Amino acid sequence: MEFTINQIAGMLNGTVRGDGAHKINMLGKIQDAKRGQVTFLSNPKYEQYIYTTQASAVIVKRDFQARKEITTTLILVDDPYSSFTVLLEEYHRVISFQKIGVEEPSFIGKNVSVGKNIYRGAFSYIGENVMVGENVKIYPHVYIGDHVRIGDNSILHSGVKLYAGSKVGKNCLIHSGTVIGSDGFGFAPQEDGSYKTIPQLGNVIIEDNVTIGANTVIDCATLYGDSTVLRKGVKLDNLIQIAHNVEVGKNTVIAAQTGISGSTKIGEGSVLGGQVGIAGHLVLANNTSIGAQAGLGKSIKEEGAKIIGSPAFDVKEYYKAYAVFKNLPALKDRLRELENKMRQLNGSLESQIEKMEEGE
Amino acid sequence: MEFTINQIAGMLNGTVRGDGAHKINMLGKIQDAKRGQVTFLSNPKYEQYIYTTQASAVIVKRDFQARKEITTTLILVDDPYSSFTVLLEEYHRVISFQKIGVEEPSFIGKNVSVGKNIYRGAFSYIGENVMVGENVKIYPHVYIGDHVRIGDNSILHSGVKLYAGSKVGKNCLIHSGTVIGSDGFGFAPQEDGSYKTIPQLGNVIIEDNVTIGANTVIDCATLYGDSTVLRKGVKLDNLIQIAHNVEVGKNTVIAAQTGISGSTKIGEGSVLGGQVGIAGHLVLANNTSIGAQAGLGKSIKEEGAKIIGSPAFDVKEYYKAYAVFKNLPALKDRLRELENKMRQLNGSLESQIEKMEEGE
Amino acid sequence: MEFTINQIAGMLNGTVRGDGAHKINMLGKIQDAKRGQVTFLSNPKYEQYIYTTQASAVIVKRDFQARKEITTTLILVDDPYSSFTVLLEEYHRVISFQKIGVEEPSFIGKNVSVGKNIYRGAFSYIGENVMVGENVKIYPHVYIGDHVRIGDNSILHSGVKLYAGSKVGKNCLIHSGTVIGSDGFGFAPQEDGSYKTIPQLGNVIIEDNVTIGANTVIDCATLYGDSTVLRKGVKLDNLIQIAHNVEVGKNTVIAAQTGISGSTKIGEGSVLGGQVGIAGHLVLANNTSIGAQAGLGKSIKEEGAKIIGSPAFDVKEYYKAYAVFKNLPALKDRLRELENKMRQLNGSLESQIEKMEEGE
Repeated sequence: MEFTINQIAGMLNGTVRGDGAHKINMLGKIQDAKRGQVTFLSNPKYEQYIYTTQASAVIVKRDFQARKEITTTLILVDDPYSSFTVLLEEYHRVISFQKIGVEEPSFIGKNVSVGKNIYRGAFSYIGENVMVGENVKIYPHVYIGDHVRIGDNSILHSGVKLYAGSKVGKNCLIHSGTVIGSDGFGFAPQEDGSYKTIPQLGNVIIEDNVTIGANTVIDCATLYGDSTVLRKGVKLDNLIQIAHNVEVGKNTVIAAQTGISGSTKIGEGSVLGGQVGIAGHLVLANNTSIGAQAGLGKSIKEEGAKIIGSPAFDVKEYYKAYAVFKNLPALKDRLRELENKMRQLNGSLESQIEKMEEGE
Repeated sequence: MEFTINQIAGMLNGTVRGDGAHKINMLGKIQDAKRGQVTFLSNPKYEQYIYTTQASAVIVKRDFQARKEITTTLILVDDPYSSFTVLLEEYHRVISFQKIGVEEPSFIGKNVSVGKNIYRGAFSYIGENVMVGENVKIYPHVYIGDHVRIGDNSILHSGVKLYAGSKVGKNCLIHSGTVIGSDGFGFAPQEDGSYKTIPQLGNVIIEDNVTIGANTVIDCATLYGDSTVLRKGVKLDNLIQIAHNVEVGKNTVIAAQTGISGSTKIGEGSVLGGQVGIAGHLVLANNTSIGAQAGLGKSIKEEGAKIIGSPAFDVKEYYKAYAVFKNLPALKDRLRELENKMRQLNGSLESQIEKMEEGE
Repeated sequence: MEFTINQIAGMLNGTVRGDGAHKINMLGKIQDAKRGQVTFLSNPKYEQYIYTTQASAVIVKRDFQARKEITTTLILVDDPYSSFTVLLEEYHRVISFQKIGVEEPSFIGKNVSVGKNIYRGAFSYIGENVMVGENVKIYPHVYIGDHVRIGDNSILHSGVKLYAGSKVGKNCLIHSGTVIGSDGFGFAPQEDGSYKTIPQLGNVIIEDNVTIGANTVIDCATLYGDSTVLRKGVKLDNLIQIAHNVEVGKNTVIAAQTGISGSTKIGEGSVLGGQVGIAGHLVLANNTSIGAQAGLGKSIKEEGAKIIGSPAFDVKEYYKAYAVFKNLPALKDRLRELENKMRQLNGSLESQIEKMEEGE
């Protein structure tokens, strides 16, 4: 990728202040960008670097007021951060090696339909009766069980495992080692203390535009015809556990190592921090925000709740309570002191009364 | 699968109330089962649906008393839930594609003994001196290291990795991405601040009827001849960490994302919630119950303990303490108020005494 | 491996007390070692076993004073534990099957340079422009993306996935299912509530002598030219999450299931317990010690801090506060009692004053 600063400004609907003829061939961070690179300034705490950066151009907000002399060329835009992500994407498209075609050996079962322009890596496995859309990339060691469907433009990185019957929408991105459609954790206790495995016959449905990190697990639903569902636009991080029959609402974002127990429904537009644990059979309203490491045992009825703690409650209340918790030993000392004073007071009051009674 | 209601009742030792001649070809949930489906009623809170369900038959408890008119056929049994799981299992056996045979390319080392009726998927790898029992299913991308043994009827889903020397019993089910026999986490600190890796030479033994979820890790024991052990009937969920030399007792159930540190022994019949953390070198009595997200740093001597919290203690005591924790700011305010009153009281008492002394 | 006790003592610079001619062919634990095995005594609480062990030899400290008769042969050394690990290592070298050579089918892309004495297992995949050092072991189902570099003597166990551009140093050991270089979790919120994926163009750099457990995930850095970095000698356990742009300092050890959010820098020589969660953009000083299940939201400036809790603070303070927490219901009762006494006291004082005033 090599563009002039003027060309880049054009792509971003930006205005150039300075020399727009310089060539840009790389993106960089404002702290250490070099000549030939373009960078951006969005967070004010990095402003200092704009006066010293070696970058050939810096993308800044239209109303940016320099407080010192600037030697680099500026590209003025409405939102520098989002403009920069546009460039990143463009860059990504150009530099990333666009895998296409079939590497051998690979395995493909009977009755498989495959769209055009797909990549099937070596050692990838596609079972029977599978439908794969256009422009799909199936990296090496991917396993696609029977009756799976994968929509256009989706990417399955090396080692993704899709159990039989799973459905993946369009424009999905699934990272290495993620398992989709494994059995839900269901066991019926027997009289002798052992457990009988309850067959898990449902599947997993992943709607369009979903991104899933690495080594995450999404179990299938229990009953035939039922599904564990990730709605459109859901973003899951790495090492997440999604149990059977869970439904994650549209555009909900979940950070790494969080676990959601069976049959729980998460409202859309929600944000869950890392290492959160959610019990089974709950319903969470839309736009719920759950802090890292929280544990949730009850449904959330009100939209927009912000909670943390284990068990979780209102985030502000939690931090107030925790501030007292940190000083509990001092609080206990104050209580003890008060008890002592009370005893002394009672004593002195009694002796006072005695005195008074003597005095009478 | 297509049976009449009478045939299904016969399989379940149930009694038909209504028309038993209808054909059933599917299982469903009571809320949305359709004609041709059989469902069940176990949890009383779903009773409402029995009066409106479209299901052709509902499995209910023998002593079920209808409070309104019922149009569907009933199958009366002792335990509707467990009867339904019997049907699920039967269904599973029939519909699930019974993989058998060898897909190519697959890899098999020297001196391997393999039972009859096994499935070896494409890209599966079996090392040297391995023994595999009858009816075993080895899905694509499974790795079986040297000297591994796998008992009859066990199933290894795609991408399971068994390090050299691991032993898996009969009727075991291991889901995708699970790693068995990786090195325990053992390092000897050196004088220069670095760590020297302590070789891990033991193995993992998984007894009969064990189920393990996806992307779980079970490390091998440290010393040659020692083993990390999952006893008969253990059920592990997804993304669990079992460190070196751990022993999990018979019929113990562990939910997702829990971690057990090295050399700890968990008693049989125990139930561990999700995201629990247990320190190393502990011994937990039988039938221990540990709530989600608990952290345990001490052994449990008494059988049947129920604990939660980090560090964990008695579950009822924990929730009482946590109830006070949530209101700590109010409690602190009450303490402050009491201190103020005490000061006032001391003040007024002093002035009182002064007065009295003046009055003397 | 078969050595005489005298030969073993020679390897360890130890002194033999007893018959040094016996042959040793196995290592064992002092509790259950048998004839022909050598074991060690380091922890005093195992001393009892030295008087009854069947082991042919026991490695003990030079100043060990027996309190009863000992029938086994002793090998006196400065540090029995570290001497034993030397033997373990030697044993490991001898018994572990030294895989070398290429198994087929395996995949190797264009322009790959491979050192001598390497092992490439069946179904392993090496992309284009990859450089692999000497004595490297690449187990079956390993995926090595384009432009990856792997240093001498490193071992990648079955199913390890290295995304394009990753760099692994010398003498590294990476266990099964670990994913290196997956996309960082970065999304730009859009006006319609959806999220736009921010391309992740950096890579992961793993320096020399790093060990990584199974099913761990290390995301790549966001910007091209940036890296997520594990410094020399880092030891990571299983199921750990390392987000984009994180840097883990030299010789830092992290236990299982811990997660570190984006751009955080962990100082060298630090020790993190299991299931710890660390927020993004923090800086932790060298030699920080973080207890299991802690949650950290602030940077640590002082070296050698020891913290726990969520949010985490000083470990001693935490346990003091937690001791009070466990008894909060009793503390609340004491407060209530004090309030009652205060009310009574105020009452009796008032009546006293009334009396006095009446008496005047």
